[in-house]
Amino acid sequence: MNFKLMGKFLSQISALEFLFMIPALVIALSLGESVAVNAFLLTMAIIAGFTLALWIPCRKGGSSFGIREGMVCCSAAWIIMAVLGCLPFIFSGALPRFVDALFETVSGFTTTGSSVAADVTAFPRSILYWRSFTHWVGGMGVLVFLLAVSPGEGGKGFTMHLLRAESPGPDVGKLVPKMKQTARILYLIYIGMSVLNLVFLLCGGMDPLDAVCTMFGTAGTGGFGVRNDSLASFSPYIQNVTTVFMFLFGVNFSCYYLILLGNFKSVFKDDELRFYLLLIFASIALIALNVRDLYATWEETLRHSAFQVGTIMSTSGYATTDFDLWPGFAKGILLLLMVFGGCAGSTAGGLKVARAMLLLKSLRRNIRQVLNPRKVQVVRVNGKAVDETVLDNANAYLAAFVTILVLSFLVLMAEGMSIGSTLSGVLTCLNNVGPGLEQLGPTCNFGGLSDLSKLTLTADMLIGRLEIFPILILFSRTTWKRK
Amino acid sequence: MNFKLMGKFLSQISALEFLFMIPALVIALSLGESVAVNAFLLTMAIIAGFTLALWIPCRKGGSSFGIREGMVCCSAAWIIMAVLGCLPFIFSGALPRFVDALFETVSGFTTTGSSVAADVTAFPRSILYWRSFTHWVGGMGVLVFLLAVSPGEGGKGFTMHLLRAESPGPDVGKLVPKMKQTARILYLIYIGMSVLNLVFLLCGGMDPLDAVCTMFGTAGTGGFGVRNDSLASFSPYIQNVTTVFMFLFGVNFSCYYLILLGNFKSVFKDDELRFYLLLIFASIALIALNVRDLYATWEETLRHSAFQVGTIMSTSGYATTDFDLWPGFAKGILLLLMVFGGCAGSTAGGLKVARAMLLLKSLRRNIRQVLNPRKVQVVRVNGKAVDETVLDNANAYLAAFVTILVLSFLVLMAEGMSIGSTLSGVLTCLNNVGPGLEQLGPTCNFGGLSDLSKLTLTADMLIGRLEIFPILILFSRTTWKRK
Repeated sequence: MNFKLMGKFLSQISALEFLFMIPALVIALSLGESVAVNAFLLTMAIIAGFTLALWIPCRKGGSSFGIREGMVCCSAAWIIMAVLGCLPFIFSGALPRFVDALFETVSGFTTTGSSVAADVTAFPRSILYWRSFTHWVGGMGVLVFLLAVSPGEGGKGFTMHLLRAESPGPDVGKLVPKMKQTARILYLIYIGMSVLNLVFLLCGGMDPLDAVCTMFGTAGTGGFGVRNDSLASFSPYIQNVTTVFMFLFGVNFSCYYLILLGNFKSVFKDDELRFYLLLIFASIALIALNVRDLYATWEETLRHSAFQVGTIMSTSGYATTDFDLWPGFAKGILLLLMVFGGCAGSTAGGLKVARAMLLLKSLRRNIRQVLNPRKVQVVRVNGKAVDETVLDNANAYLAAFVTILVLSFLVLMAEGMSIGSTLSGVLTCLNNVGPGLEQLGPTCNFGGLSDLSKLTLTADMLIGRLEIFPILILFSRTTWKRK
Repeated sequence: MNFKLMGKFLSQISALEFLFMIPALVIALSLGESVAVNAFLLTMAIIAGFTLALWIPCRKGGSSFGIREGMVCCSAAWIIMAVLGCLPFIFSGALPRFVDALFETVSGFTTTGSSVAADVTAFPRSILYWRSFTHWVGGMGVLVFLLAVSPGEGGKGFTMHLLRAESPGPDVGKLVPKMKQTARILYLIYIGMSVLNLVFLLCGGMDPLDAVCTMFGTAGTGGFGVRNDSLASFSPYIQNVTTVFMFLFGVNFSCYYLILLGNFKSVFKDDELRFYLLLIFASIALIALNVRDLYATWEETLRHSAFQVGTIMSTSGYATTDFDLWPGFAKGILLLLMVFGGCAGSTAGGLKVARAMLLLKSLRRNIRQVLNPRKVQVVRVNGKAVDETVLDNANAYLAAFVTILVLSFLVLMAEGMSIGSTLSGVLTCLNNVGPGLEQLGPTCNFGGLSDLSKLTLTADMLIGRLEIFPILILFSRTTWKRK
């Protein structure tokens, strides 16, 4: 392990967080929220100290960087971001307990959107801004951001291994040969779409700061609301705009790059996108038919169905209606969509449509293999044979996912909630969605849980966002062995 | 596909069921249950007709038999056994509706033990006998039985492919080079242990017919009770005897063969057995500590804990207490044990300890592979390297299991039950356990469900017992293609 290079890199991450906090401080100053101003100043002082303490001994770090270092760095960066990022909640008194503040911050960075706060309107507005901003930067990735803005190519394998560790999906899509260039293109598309989303929201007459926060939550597919009823009390226009953008941010960003290049054909032929659209339209249709009786008009039925499918499938976690009151079939579909999540290479969480597709295809292949043991069967995506390593990883991912799900479930069952609440609570955190069902439904929050449960779910959110392996690797003996 | 040979084979299976029904008929005659006598006679006439109708055109079937034929034959045999076996329930009026009778019979043969009957004491006792007998023969396998008793070695690959399709676990353990000999040894051990169990029950002063039925349910790890409260109103002695035998029948039968050969060393070193024992003792200890307050003495606490762990882990499904009233943590452990199930090569259902172990080991291997991509990592069980095909199959099994779980869950959610009831109901059927939790807990039954839900669960029970692939293969185009 190259600890010096890691230390240098982590000091850059911490410096980045310092910069991220400046707009929040400015908002606090301009709104005259003195408690928040002090909280941000104190936090920034601590971050500055931490950055220097890490940077000075490590500034002359080497340049050789392997996949292990990449993964450990990625996990460490996220943990540092979360621990430092939760300080404003504590210092401002919004969430005075460390466990609560950490839960909320990790929920933010991982774009989960589950909250321990019963009344968010009591928070200073600059704190609400910071809370939602974590969604935005967490959505596309902190490390990707650092790569995009930092000069130079970094050490050998540096960018590649970091991007691989943080990017969602079974395979890293390099848009262009250079990783740094890829990171820049991704962030440019991300910023462009975010601005577009903001403009649409402002056109609907939304308060500017509310619009920015809602955009952050939509773009990062996070889901922290600025009101206690999420988006239920906003106008149908605002809700529909958010529905459309939630779906858009759940699409693999390489599709947008292809569109920018004018290569529409590849986009239309993309297997994952097709499957994603199929799931969306089928789910909306089935749910709309199932909940038709609950709403006065077809317009309302479709609006709520589409919004809820969008919010769960893109793993945002906003809500316009209490879908825990929906009939069982509709709830079952939502629970299923929770697991699928959005497309690989998007800001969405979950298993990812691409990985689910790989698993289903590898399942079909295996049945054929049992039937014809002598014939070599190949799994194809977009017409190309998939490498066996990718399939092995997808299967191992599922096994790890189920294992973690089961262990977390067991810890959470000690709360004495119903099985449905417990299961949906773990699923919603592990897949970075936000709300669960039954006792953890969209009108409830996670504040009543014990510290052990909150810490378990906090870990689940991180595990889900970083796609399991970077976190698991921290617990492997091999990782810490000196050569 | 060799349809003639399949037809011949299936006619033998149907003839076997005719023979199996004779003891039930004798019991009905001796108890003077005229309704049941008529039901059995009518059923046996139908079975005889069916057997002849199948045997006459197919009696000169060829001898070449591949893995596909083996699997299709296996599924077809089980479906035929179930459809013919449910007729006595219908004709006797015990369960007049076909869907109910089929559910109950499949639940019997697959050793699930879930019931749609609210009051089993109202059944004729000969019908109860038949109901429990299906557990016994289903536990070790109908095809294995036929192989054990039929003369001759069958066609090329015949016995091998059939045994492979019906035997539980990730790999077929051949005890001796000849498959037929293996089948005989298995059944001899099975009969020996069943008799031992029966003797112990009779020593406890149990009514002989009750003892036979309870033994059938224990040996097959089925769980149909002869009383409405399962085993709760029997003496602690009977409960403890049943606990011990449930654990014993959940062990891989090859261990008993090794013990008979005096090879104790291999048994003690068996990885699966060790993991099985570890799970048992850990679960009992954790649950006992968790439910200590609910019972008066430590004896009672341990008795109920051990019994419930035994009943769920061996996938029997008896109950001595309403474990749905236990605290969440204990219920969570039970839900987890439901998935694990017993050992491969036992009469128990579930994922099987061996397969779960393979999945966990292949997961650990995959993490190591990510860390050291250049080093070839091997998964070992009992010190030997596991073939990659076995690992691939275990992973595909898990993927198929999750897929079927999700689809069934979705269908069952339309019932409007809680998520916990629905999930545990699907899990309990898919893993051939018996009772679920919440609205499908040990004091409830499956009678209130819709026909669609009952048929879905019926299919799940079959899929679980035959370990997915033999059933899935029925839906593959390749299977029905003529060469």
